[in-house]
Amino acid sequence: MRISELSKQSGLSVPTIKFYLREGLLQPGVRTGRNQAEYAEEHLARLRFIQVLTGPGRLGISDVREVLAAIDSRGRPLRGLCTVINATVVAMPAVDGEDDVRREVDGYVDRLGWQVDDDAAERRTLAQVLAMLRRLGWSDGVEVFDAYAEAARELAAYEATDVPADPPDADVCMRLTARLVLLDVALTALRRMALTHHTGTRRHSDAQVP
Amino acid sequence: MRISELSKQSGLSVPTIKFYLREGLLQPGVRTGRNQAEYAEEHLARLRFIQVLTGPGRLGISDVREVLAAIDSRGRPLRGLCTVINATVVAMPAVDGEDDVRREVDGYVDRLGWQVDDDAAERRTLAQVLAMLRRLGWSDGVEVFDAYAEAARELAAYEATDVPADPPDADVCMRLTARLVLLDVALTALRRMALTHHTGTRRHSDAQVP
Repeated sequence: MRISELSKQSGLSVPTIKFYLREGLLQPGVRTGRNQAEYAEEHLARLRFIQVLTGPGRLGISDVREVLAAIDSRGRPLRGLCTVINATVVAMPAVDGEDDVRREVDGYVDRLGWQVDDDAAERRTLAQVLAMLRRLGWSDGVEVFDAYAEAARELAAYEATDVPADPPDADVCMRLTARLVLLDVALTALRRMALTHHTGTRRHSDAQVP
Repeated sequence: MRISELSKQSGLSVPTIKFYLREGLLQPGVRTGRNQAEYAEEHLARLRFIQVLTGPGRLGISDVREVLAAIDSRGRPLRGLCTVINATVVAMPAVDGEDDVRREVDGYVDRLGWQVDDDAAERRTLAQVLAMLRRLGWSDGVEVFDAYAEAARELAAYEATDVPADPPDADVCMRLTARLVLLDVALTALRRMALTHHTGTRRHSDAQVP
């Protein structure tokens, strides 16, 4: 298909697609003329993946580039690939005090019994969350994570059934990653609804902010 | 405190703080001279709240403005306040096909028995997720949300204990909102860790991407 058709089917503007081409996020089409190229279904699939990362995934272009590079690099251990993707999804800027609580978080992850690399970005993220909660005046300890860790454990058991036992190729990898990102968003929406319902039924709905 | 001290304690640069002042996101300090103003703890608390929204919350400035306006508007029903905050957190750009699945999603939310406004942003987000999954080639129906809805229900029961029965003032509101945003991030990190662990223990860790 032409770039105009690619634009129509993806809903992305031609300048945006050209930007992705220039940036190397999208592989070039097959040249069919001086100013024309032909694009295939795989280009469309890749654009839709990028849309998931930049839209619901709220990733910036540099993170998108990192995720795509990880997916494109064949021969990378699957676990290493997940590490890159997870890191871009949970990474936050440095937070004052995160180093002070890191040991508590590491002890917590150990107690959960989860095999996670010592330098996994997620450990740092938990330490950052704890440090920020304290800066905001909450006195939470790591036990604030208990209910979430339990939910995470149950959901992972469910999600792992989607992950193929054989190492996936780039295409499967993109679809799985997009699915996880989208289901993250769905979970957030469902949690907000459940909380609205839950507080609403405590006769909150008509209360006025003073 | 002076703006320099506010900068030091928040970790935000003076130009960033001045930008927030110009944009009306931060209330002005008390003038103490021609080019000087004095800031209080409430300014620092507000900056830390903005940091949570723009950092872990990944909100843009216009969304931050909306959340702050909702929090500042007294007399607004609490449920309306939650509606604004939730909408900014889950809002996504329009997705092709979302209208086609909206009825399925509405039926699903009804079956969950949750009292959520008909025009709540979360309903639309779920429809968008479903539409995007299908565009990516997944054939999921609404039942893909089951495990997440169950987790959301359990977590909401836990989180609702934090929400005061009396309508909170703006300060409590900021702290609660920040906490929910941070715990969203913690949940994502915990889910990634749990999934890494779960797939790793299925002898995945040394597999190579072909």
